[in-house]
Amino acid sequence: MIKVSVMYPNSADVRFDIDYYCNTHLPFVVGLLGDALKGGAVDYGLGGGAPGESPPYVAMGHMTFDSIEEFQAAFGPNTEVIMADLPNFTNTQPQIQISEIKI
Amino acid sequence: MIKVSVMYPNSADVRFDIDYYCNTHLPFVVGLLGDALKGGAVDYGLGGGAPGESPPYVAMGHMTFDSIEEFQAAFGPNTEVIMADLPNFTNTQPQIQISEIKI
Repeated sequence: MIKVSVMYPNSADVRFDIDYYCNTHLPFVVGLLGDALKGGAVDYGLGGGAPGESPPYVAMGHMTFDSIEEFQAAFGPNTEVIMADLPNFTNTQPQIQISEIKI
Repeated sequence: MIKVSVMYPNSADVRFDIDYYCNTHLPFVVGLLGDALKGGAVDYGLGGGAPGESPPYVAMGHMTFDSIEEFQAAFGPNTEVIMADLPNFTNTQPQIQISEIKI
């Protein structure tokens, strides 16, 4: 299994509508990806490693797939329409990480 | 529930022994944290968002706790001994993110 993490960097002037993200953006993405998407998770940043420190990311969304090929086949044709929804909930550009799920 | 993500930045000269991390470091940490630790996951970086791009993080470990207070009470007294094990598997300093688990 692989995990695709979409990580939205934090900043002083960041805008991120977590309600829109969870209730509108994600259901839209889930509908587009279909059966290839095996699971998902959403983390909302609370803090960093030291007391009072800001979290590095305002939010992170994680999606699991059986393989990179299955992710690419499902996501590729929908990339443009998914990216076009980002300004509706954030002013930051996400970093993407593809990982092997070890544990 | 909250998630503590320990994210090891990638770089050209990064060293990260994923076998030591999974089989020696994590069992050591799990033993120290005791019942406060509710779950965990390990992601091993494969790539970034574009084909051929490096992953932002060589690896990420995630630990779940009932609350920030429970995490701090369990981790705080063990921080020094846990950090002292890092040179045994990596030459990079992790970024820490504490998140609320929304989904």
